[in-house]
Amino acid sequence: MKLLLTGFEPFGGETINPAQEALALVSDRIGALEIIKRILPVAFGTSIAEVRAALREHRPDAVLCVGQAGGRMEVTPERVALNLNDARIPDNKGNQPVDEPVFADGPAAYFTTLPLREMVAAIHAAGLPARVSNTAGLFVCNHVMYGVLYHLAHELPGAIGGFMHVPYAPEQAVRQSAPQPSMSKNDIARAIAAAISAIERHLTARR
Amino acid sequence: MKLLLTGFEPFGGETINPAQEALALVSDRIGALEIIKRILPVAFGTSIAEVRAALREHRPDAVLCVGQAGGRMEVTPERVALNLNDARIPDNKGNQPVDEPVFADGPAAYFTTLPLREMVAAIHAAGLPARVSNTAGLFVCNHVMYGVLYHLAHELPGAIGGFMHVPYAPEQAVRQSAPQPSMSKNDIARAIAAAISAIERHLTARR
Amino acid sequence: MKLLLTGFEPFGGETINPAQEALALVSDRIGALEIIKRILPVAFGTSIAEVRAALREHRPDAVLCVGQAGGRMEVTPERVALNLNDARIPDNKGNQPVDEPVFADGPAAYFTTLPLREMVAAIHAAGLPARVSNTAGLFVCNHVMYGVLYHLAHELPGAIGGFMHVPYAPEQAVRQSAPQPSMSKNDIARAIAAAISAIERHLTARR
Amino acid sequence: MKLLLTGFEPFGGETINPAQEALALVSDRIGALEIIKRILPVAFGTSIAEVRAALREHRPDAVLCVGQAGGRMEVTPERVALNLNDARIPDNKGNQPVDEPVFADGPAAYFTTLPLREMVAAIHAAGLPARVSNTAGLFVCNHVMYGVLYHLAHELPGAIGGFMHVPYAPEQAVRQSAPQPSMSKNDIARAIAAAISAIERHLTARR
Repeated sequence: MKLLLTGFEPFGGETINPAQEALALVSDRIGALEIIKRILPVAFGTSIAEVRAALREHRPDAVLCVGQAGGRMEVTPERVALNLNDARIPDNKGNQPVDEPVFADGPAAYFTTLPLREMVAAIHAAGLPARVSNTAGLFVCNHVMYGVLYHLAHELPGAIGGFMHVPYAPEQAVRQSAPQPSMSKNDIARAIAAAISAIERHLTARR
Repeated sequence: MKLLLTGFEPFGGETINPAQEALALVSDRIGALEIIKRILPVAFGTSIAEVRAALREHRPDAVLCVGQAGGRMEVTPERVALNLNDARIPDNKGNQPVDEPVFADGPAAYFTTLPLREMVAAIHAAGLPARVSNTAGLFVCNHVMYGVLYHLAHELPGAIGGFMHVPYAPEQAVRQSAPQPSMSKNDIARAIAAAISAIERHLTARR
Repeated sequence: MKLLLTGFEPFGGETINPAQEALALVSDRIGALEIIKRILPVAFGTSIAEVRAALREHRPDAVLCVGQAGGRMEVTPERVALNLNDARIPDNKGNQPVDEPVFADGPAAYFTTLPLREMVAAIHAAGLPARVSNTAGLFVCNHVMYGVLYHLAHELPGAIGGFMHVPYAPEQAVRQSAPQPSMSKNDIARAIAAAISAIERHLTARR
Repeated sequence: MKLLLTGFEPFGGETINPAQEALALVSDRIGALEIIKRILPVAFGTSIAEVRAALREHRPDAVLCVGQAGGRMEVTPERVALNLNDARIPDNKGNQPVDEPVFADGPAAYFTTLPLREMVAAIHAAGLPARVSNTAGLFVCNHVMYGVLYHLAHELPGAIGGFMHVPYAPEQAVRQSAPQPSMSKNDIARAIAAAISAIERHLTARR
């Protein structure tokens, strides 16, 4: 089985992205899953185009996209993606959509098809804080999550997919003007691996 | 030269104390400093008695006490200790003093004699978030910081001393009902070592 | 024209609900709008049944439901309601659904049809803090918001509707163990009136 | 009996100061206390000079200084003033002292001589959130609190004095980029009046 694991390049003035850094630390195989990694641009449109190309190339059984959520204290698997782009800051290509749908022909929202509670339990079992989040924001993270679920629904209906936000890395917290929570890159990588293990068990059990 | 490094046993319903866990990961020698470690009880009175016994036994050049501050996002060297015990919860021996002085014959406060800004800069250089704190609370942490500075003033006036708070470890954050910031034990240990390096440079420079 | 304005009874151990208290302070007429007020039970199912009965009785042009969001610092008009009930605490009838749809035949989400940005701007113009929220939670507030938008879509497709969360009242913050933000009942009532004025201008302009 | 009640002019880019606004709403007589009001400049040195002039002119029985603490959720009577000026931003005259004593011949700290717990209880009884704070910062608020206690100790040893921080007013929260807690000016004035009533009872009881 295959899992497509995506991170993002840095954005919003940051020089690193903890999702990108942590991805490099995640093994290429977890249980029965081959892990295929992609780093996506923080850009409306092209981010979804790149993840769709990877879906078509690899036809994975599961997709886990990971992104930075500055200010969060825990790893937060996301419950839902909204059909709305509404950016408070420009993306890395200078685009800043306001109240636009991700796909004009899509539903208002997609719920994740990943096993949320099992992922949280697995991260807890690894000794790391995690909680289900009910909002992925309306920037490129939500955009990619919606795009993945839209394309899975249309092109790979048997596959499951979703998104997980991670805190700042400590070196990012150093550079913020106000105190910010953070999590070490090693721990973020361990949380991602724990979540993937839960996904692997879920896929194996439903066979 | 010698540095006395203290941590605390767990308290307040926790099963670990990140200061205690991190101390075990700190080297026994940092630059020209021999590191002497002690774990103190979370108890008014006996905590100071134990640290005073260690001062008399080892006559260190510097003292760095480390304690847990649940809810903090950063490592926070403390600026000042107040001559006041005012506990919101009982200590590990069941004592809960209200508005009592630490030492009836002591001044209202002692400022730390550690090089605060150099310690923060050294922790930042290690890629970890840190900030000077202006309150060590009024529980056993402040109590020990005041006691150390009181006894150094009376018995080892050439030595320097102070306190540093550290966040929850991630496994503690897992067990809180609300989201809490945390820092890995490895990173806490690295922050302590970085702070001690700054102290070592300060001691070496003033010789 | 008519606007149905709903609040809630107290829940979660509170003795008051700031939405209920503030509703009593809102005028019965704002511009061209007659204001019809209802206090809903904090209960899955019956809350929607009661609001549906009011929709059928009064056939309003707009619906604004207001609820308490302890911990929020601002008045927060909600962008979206999810088709999911997932309660961390029991409702006032002891029910605590986990991952159940609000309506099995409904879409994953409804976006509000109220003029969000105009509402926020009107509250700001009244000197009060406000911000669009992207999550109404998954308790009875989201449940009612979803139910209103579902029933408006089916029975009153020309009407607009949505939800607005408000902070704790100060007297509630007094009784919490940790510091909590709050807003005076007078100011909450002023924020509701400002939001309704924005809705009234929106309804008038589209005629 | 007389109480000197001080507020501050706006600072740090704000156009109002909630302490100044609230002072105007506080009665000129509370129980047996005549209330004498002064608005102080947000400036190191001159702020203390002005409050000292008022002490000499009016020889009050009690002094309550009030200042803005953006970010706080509650009214917070301060426990202690430190003999240290350490400003993160320039004061209104452009001065920004770093690690300087307030008075070179003063002790490290003064504890407030106001009845802290009675003040908090009185504010709670008025339905408003309050809590004792253990740090008044190291900007002009702490500076004035230290200066008042220093001058009372030297010139009016029978008088009592201290400081109380208050949250942003709502109209200030509107203009911040991130969500901020606030309290209405009316409620801040009610909290100040409640605190003064507690001081009045304390003064009357000790006669």
